[in-house]
Amino acid sequence: MAKCRISQRLERVESFHVMSLMAEAKKLEAQGHSVIHMEMGEPDFSTPAPIVAAGVAALQAGITHYTPTLGLPALREAIADHYMREYQVAVEPEQIIITPGSALALQLVLSLMVSDKDHVAMADPTYPSTHNLVRLLGGTVLHIPVNEDSSWQLNLDLLVQHWHESINAVLIASPSNPTGTIIADEQLQKIADFCADKSVFLLVDEIYHGLVYSRAPSSAVGMNENTFVINSFSKFYGMTGWRVGWIVAPKQYLSEINKLAQHTFLAAPTLGQYAALAAFQDDTRKILIERREEFRQRRDYLVGALESIGFGICVQPEGAFYIYADCSAFCEDSYKFSCKVLREKHVAFTPGIDFGNVGAKQHVRFAYTTNLENLKIGIKRLASLIN
Amino acid sequence: MAKCRISQRLERVESFHVMSLMAEAKKLEAQGHSVIHMEMGEPDFSTPAPIVAAGVAALQAGITHYTPTLGLPALREAIADHYMREYQVAVEPEQIIITPGSALALQLVLSLMVSDKDHVAMADPTYPSTHNLVRLLGGTVLHIPVNEDSSWQLNLDLLVQHWHESINAVLIASPSNPTGTIIADEQLQKIADFCADKSVFLLVDEIYHGLVYSRAPSSAVGMNENTFVINSFSKFYGMTGWRVGWIVAPKQYLSEINKLAQHTFLAAPTLGQYAALAAFQDDTRKILIERREEFRQRRDYLVGALESIGFGICVQPEGAFYIYADCSAFCEDSYKFSCKVLREKHVAFTPGIDFGNVGAKQHVRFAYTTNLENLKIGIKRLASLIN
Repeated sequence: MAKCRISQRLERVESFHVMSLMAEAKKLEAQGHSVIHMEMGEPDFSTPAPIVAAGVAALQAGITHYTPTLGLPALREAIADHYMREYQVAVEPEQIIITPGSALALQLVLSLMVSDKDHVAMADPTYPSTHNLVRLLGGTVLHIPVNEDSSWQLNLDLLVQHWHESINAVLIASPSNPTGTIIADEQLQKIADFCADKSVFLLVDEIYHGLVYSRAPSSAVGMNENTFVINSFSKFYGMTGWRVGWIVAPKQYLSEINKLAQHTFLAAPTLGQYAALAAFQDDTRKILIERREEFRQRRDYLVGALESIGFGICVQPEGAFYIYADCSAFCEDSYKFSCKVLREKHVAFTPGIDFGNVGAKQHVRFAYTTNLENLKIGIKRLASLIN
Repeated sequence: MAKCRISQRLERVESFHVMSLMAEAKKLEAQGHSVIHMEMGEPDFSTPAPIVAAGVAALQAGITHYTPTLGLPALREAIADHYMREYQVAVEPEQIIITPGSALALQLVLSLMVSDKDHVAMADPTYPSTHNLVRLLGGTVLHIPVNEDSSWQLNLDLLVQHWHESINAVLIASPSNPTGTIIADEQLQKIADFCADKSVFLLVDEIYHGLVYSRAPSSAVGMNENTFVINSFSKFYGMTGWRVGWIVAPKQYLSEINKLAQHTFLAAPTLGQYAALAAFQDDTRKILIERREEFRQRRDYLVGALESIGFGICVQPEGAFYIYADCSAFCEDSYKFSCKVLREKHVAFTPGIDFGNVGAKQHVRFAYTTNLENLKIGIKRLASLIN
C-alpha cells in the first residue's frame, strides 16, 4: 500500500548525521572492537546517589500520580531559590515551568514565539534541534555566521548587522553546543536591551550553565520581561534519563504557557521531579562540584593534546563538555574524516555538518564525556592516523 | 514592558474549562470542605507494586542514562509480544515507538500527518487536546457530530457523508473520552478500508483499551499500512506519573518518525521504561484485572444511580472510566450546572463544553476514578440538590 501524503514540515527537518556514525560504532563494538566515544552529549557519570535516594524514597511512598501540569510546587520553589542563591536574581516560583526535558522546554517556548514567516536569529554553528524545531513550527531560521572572533557567539554588532523586520526572536546558547564557549555578560545584556528596544523575544539556552570552568557567568533570567531562559537537570546534575527540564518565563506569558503545556505534554515525570528536589542539597552539590573539576581536567588535557597533534582550537572552550576543533590540517571534509577515523582507528566524534554551515567541513566536535584514560587512548589512536 | 507578538497558533487553542472548576474545588478544600472528585481523568489507584519494584531495582542498579530515542529495545519487544498475545496481531518491535506519555505520541503522529490546510476528521464530542493539537500544527479540525445513535463514535456512513478532499487523516478514539463508548469492530475495519481507498491516514487512540468491561475489542494495529495506533501505560497499567506512552507505526514511516522524535522529545524517561517491563508480568496482570473489575462495579453503580436521579444515559459506556450523562432535565447550561453543584454541594465533574459542541450544554462527564463510597456520597449530594 502506497504512503499517504506526509506533512511538508518533514522536508524542512534533518536527522543528526552523527547517528550513522553511532550505528557504525555499534557495529564495530558488536564485532569485538573497543571504540572510544567522544561523540556523546551525555555525561558518563550516573545520577548522584542523594538524587537516586530521593527517587527511591518517592517510589516507596507510592508517589506515582501526575503532578500539576506546570510542575511540582516544591520543585518550582526550589529552582526559584536557586536563582536567588546562585545569581542573586529574584524569580517567583510561578515563573518556573517544569518540562519533560529541555527539548520540550525549547519546543514550548518556540511554539509561543514563532508564527509562519517569523524569523528566529541564532548563531551558526548551533545545536541542530534548535533550528529544526523552528522549521517544524513553520518559522524561518536566520543563521548568523559566527567564528573565533566573537568566541563563536552572537554579539550586538553581528545582530545589528543582520537585523531585519521579520525577526521575532533571538536565540543564544551559552555555554554553546558544539563550541563550549560562553557569551560575555555585557554582550548578553546589550542583546537583551536591543531585543527589548525592538520588541522581540530573547531565548537563552543555559542547559550547560552549571558546567563552566573559569568564572561564574550571569544568567539571562530577569534581564527583561520578554526574555525566556531554559535549563535542565540533565547535564550538570547528571539526570539525563529522568527527563526533567525547566523554563524561566516572564510573568506576562504564563497563561499562554499553561495552555500550551496542557495540550503538548500534560506534565513532566513525577519521579524525576521528586528526585530533583535533592539536586540542590549540600551533599549532592559536593558531588557535582567534584565532577565539574574532573570535567575541567579532561578539558585541559584534551585541548592541549588535540593542539599538539595538529588540531586548531583558537578559542578556549570555557564550559559544557565540548571542544570544536579545526581539522583542516588533515582533511577537506570533516564528515569523511570522522568516518575514516572511526573505521580505521575506532574513535568516534561528531562532524561539523551537524551544527550548521559555517566552518562545518573544517571542524569536528569532541565531547569529553569519557574518562581521562579513554581520552588518552583516543588521542594516541588519532595521532597514529595523522602522522 | 509590553508583550512581544505571540504566535497566531495560540489563538486557535483553548484551555480546559474544567481547570477553573478544579481551582475552585481546591479553594473549597483549603477551607476545610470535603469535595467529591468525579472530574479526574486519572485512576485513584497508584502504580502496582511489581512495577514500582522494577523501578526501584533499576534505580539501585544505577540505570539513569538516556535510552535510545525510539525506546528501550526490551520494552519495544515486550509491547510487540503483547499485541500477539492479546490480539493475535504480528507487529515488529521496530514498529513500536516509546514516547514520554501518549500526549507526545499524539503530537508526533499528528506532526507527521498534518500540513497547513489539511483537515483531520474526528467525532464531536472528543478529547480536547486532540483538536487543539491539530490546530497548533496549523491544521483544520473537521468535527463530525455524533450522538447516541452511533454510540458516540464515527461510523462509515457518517464519514462518507462528511467526506471532502482536504481530509488527510481520520481520528478514532475507542474507548472514547468523554463517552466511554467503543467503536464496533466491523465499523473500525470499514473505516480503515475506506481510509486505505482514499489514501489518507487513520489514527486510532487506544489509551483506554485495557479498560473495557464487556468484551475484548479488536485493536486497529495492522489493519492497514497507513494506520497508526497510540496507547500508554498510564490508564490501565496505573502509571500516569511515569509518562510512558507508545505508537504502533506502519514500517514505511519509521524514518520520518525517527527524525521527529530526535528533535521533539529526544527520549522517554528511562526509569518509566524499565518499570514498564514489569507491566506484562503475571503478578501485575492479576492486580490490573482486579482493578478493572472494581472499575466495572463502579460503572454499574454510577450508571444506575445517575439514571435513578434523572440523568439520561442512552448508551451504556463499555470502557474507560467515564460516563457522558445528559443533564438537560435539570439545567439549560451544563457549565453553569457544574459550577452550581460544586459551589453548593462540593461535587466536581466536567462540563460538556470541554469536549466539543454537540450536546455540550446538555451533558456532563462523570469519572469514576474515586471509590464506591465516595461515588455514593456524591450521588446523595447531587440528589439533594436536584430534588
